Amino acid sequence: MPESILDDISHRRFNPLRGSWVLVSPHRTKRPWQGQQEASSKTTLPEYDPSCYLCPGNQRAQGDVNPKYEKTFVFVNDYSAVKEEQEEYNSENKDGSLSSRLLRAESVTGKCYVITFSPSHNLTLADLTPTEIVPIIQTWTKLYTAHLNPKSPLAQVASATTIAPHSHEESFAAPNAQYRYMQIFENKGAAMGCSNPHPHGQVWTTTSLPEEPSLELEQLKKYRREQGGANLLEDYATLEATKQERVVFENGSFLALCPWWAVWPFEVMIVSKQHKRALVDFDDKEKEDLAEAIAEVTGRYDNLFETQFPYSMGLHQAPLDGTKEEIEASHFHMHFYPPLLRSATVRKFLVGYEMMAEPQRDITPEQAATRLRNCGGELYRRKLQ
Amino acid sequence: MPESILDDISHRRFNPLRGSWVLVSPHRTKRPWQGQQEASSKTTLPEYDPSCYLCPGNQRAQGDVNPKYEKTFVFVNDYSAVKEEQEEYNSENKDGSLSSRLLRAESVTGKCYVITFSPSHNLTLADLTPTEIVPIIQTWTKLYTAHLNPKSPLAQVASATTIAPHSHEESFAAPNAQYRYMQIFENKGAAMGCSNPHPHGQVWTTTSLPEEPSLELEQLKKYRREQGGANLLEDYATLEATKQERVVFENGSFLALCPWWAVWPFEVMIVSKQHKRALVDFDDKEKEDLAEAIAEVTGRYDNLFETQFPYSMGLHQAPLDGTKEEIEASHFHMHFYPPLLRSATVRKFLVGYEMMAEPQRDITPEQAATRLRNCGGELYRRKLQ
Ligand SMILES: O=P(O)(O)O[C@H]1O[C@H](CO)[C@@H](O)[C@H](O)[C@H]1O
Ligand SMILES: O=P(O)(O)O[C@H]1O[C@H](CO)[C@@H](O)[C@H](O)[C@H]1O
Repeated sequence: MPESILDDISHRRFNPLRGSWVLVSPHRTKRPWQGQQEASSKTTLPEYDPSCYLCPGNQRAQGDVNPKYEKTFVFVNDYSAVKEEQEEYNSENKDGSLSSRLLRAESVTGKCYVITFSPSHNLTLADLTPTEIVPIIQTWTKLYTAHLNPKSPLAQVASATTIAPHSHEESFAAPNAQYRYMQIFENKGAAMGCSNPHPHGQVWTTTSLPEEPSLELEQLKKYRREQGGANLLEDYATLEATKQERVVFENGSFLALCPWWAVWPFEVMIVSKQHKRALVDFDDKEKEDLAEAIAEVTGRYDNLFETQFPYSMGLHQAPLDGTKEEIEASHFHMHFYPPLLRSATVRKFLVGYEMMAEPQRDITPEQAATRLRNCGGELYRRKLQ
Repeated sequence: MPESILDDISHRRFNPLRGSWVLVSPHRTKRPWQGQQEASSKTTLPEYDPSCYLCPGNQRAQGDVNPKYEKTFVFVNDYSAVKEEQEEYNSENKDGSLSSRLLRAESVTGKCYVITFSPSHNLTLADLTPTEIVPIIQTWTKLYTAHLNPKSPLAQVASATTIAPHSHEESFAAPNAQYRYMQIFENKGAAMGCSNPHPHGQVWTTTSLPEEPSLELEQLKKYRREQGGANLLEDYATLEATKQERVVFENGSFLALCPWWAVWPFEVMIVSKQHKRALVDFDDKEKEDLAEAIAEVTGRYDNLFETQFPYSMGLHQAPLDGTKEEIEASHFHMHFYPPLLRSATVRKFLVGYEMMAEPQRDITPEQAATRLRNCGGELYRRKLQ
């Protein structure tokens, strides 16, 4: 049992994966809400939308035509946040002037992809079966593999298992440059800035190691050094599997849980039980288990408030290019950050205090996990049919 | 001139105040937007709303009746995020077990206040004149003073200048406990989670030093040690005042600028030109200058898209209780984080990539500053009348 006093007192919890704190105010959920309500997303989408730039056979913003793909479809983002080629910029002005200390910049290049999750305009991850999610995991794995530094120990593992391309999928061309990190993520729902309801994710690959994976890597390396080679997230998974207070779903390879240090009301982490560095470390069974965990989390999310539950989701794993220590310290996990708090229309805002001072949450992660544990089973939409 | 190449290439900029990076994608503003549109806030509010729990003379949620206040009004939040009194919790379990390493928590107590900015239900900071904003700054200063550790060097400065209470304002009772930090902030607009349109701010005071001020303090102390006692933000203000590339407004005591490392599209920082540790360091003229800077920033925000511009705003200053080094390294500044990007209805979402990897912005801070510089003068609402 969690020390039950934490259900009642205001307290902070420490996130050892980021090295940061979150303020928890369990007594605050009684607050009435007079603020903004989200539009609830009850509208049913068609299976095919002729105006959607992601549906098979349709034309995209910049003129390309999508193939009649059958599983996933990957293309380079028409409005990438980073460019592949650009003028050189060497900022490393080290003359000791105020500018060199306070106006620091560095060039970033990279490549951004979009991945549709299904040819159907209206099938979200929650609607797909684990078997239908496996091809998405395969596509992520192939993309990751294509961008790995060929000298990385992970490249050898990857080359041992070739995954056949899906229909209408070219094998992914090696990039022009050796990128440092690949961030795979999904924004689901208008509340999370998603601009097209056709279920899709994104992949941004950059020459830089971004802030969040970099923070996590520092903590993972530190733990490993301090604990004689132990892995923080492996230890954490072991601990949570024993306690069963924050676990939402579990199978042979993965735990889905509301982390002790969760910021968002129904934040979930999917973490591999064993030490796996990246997607390429998973065999077929593990990919099926991951697909099942994703299906379980997204389905429970939708069931919780009987709505299309918005979230941002992302994968953290080993850098494409990194030191041996960085690669060995990495531990595959996925974060789900959903904004809804009390119903399909009342969200948690991380605003003034959260931006200026510290993230703050109302319900405890234990309470959130209990609710998510209790809403598994068939998707509410299917029951209604 | 900024190195003009940065208007065109994807790059990262370093924030020396937090020790973190932001990804800048200036070429990306051409992206079409098919996502969520914000409700534009054209509705005109009455000067008095009988159902508002902040208007003078009205009853609040838990039964108290507001006095007929004339300037500002402060009361303890009816739904505080931290409690003043609670059961003791001593978490410092140091037995070396997995739990002690990975499930860390600590108790936090504190006090949360609400401050109305004006008795009028419909007068935001942008509608008030600098002279009308001065009383708000006085109230912040009095609250801060009342919670200072009496042994802090700042307490002596504060006691030298007593500010008379406003009508219907009790002098603030000293708290039960010595708190560590006071976070003063405002959430403006439904898009920023504000649940009551009556212009008001909040003050959360805690036994803990929250994440953000703590990160900043570390950087400020480090800079001071490395640069022979120089102050990071004083140096930064000097540099920006010379360059004039990111300055939006300037008076004798303050600069309002879009920081080199801004994350939000029209993020602004108000920073004192001289080294001032906290509100209590300001004399009457400096308080007037601060009021003018606040009026200039909020007015320009509303003028930019001719709307009630949403934002979260907060003050960073010296801890209430801290080491001499912490207090001396602190430098008063205010952050404004507004979500709007392209119009009154299109916001910038900091979601998937931003949450999982790194904050990302589209327009450059220099472009944002130019636009804000050019929309000063009378408030659009007044011109329309
Ligand atoms: O206290 P309020 O204004 O009701 O609530 C608002 O500000 C708080 C502090 O930033 C947030 O924790 C809440 O999510 C937000 O809705
Ligand atoms: O690329 P999209 O889906 O159009 O855009 C969305 O995701 C991006 C990555 O998280 C964000 O930078 C954008 O603000 C958001 O609207």
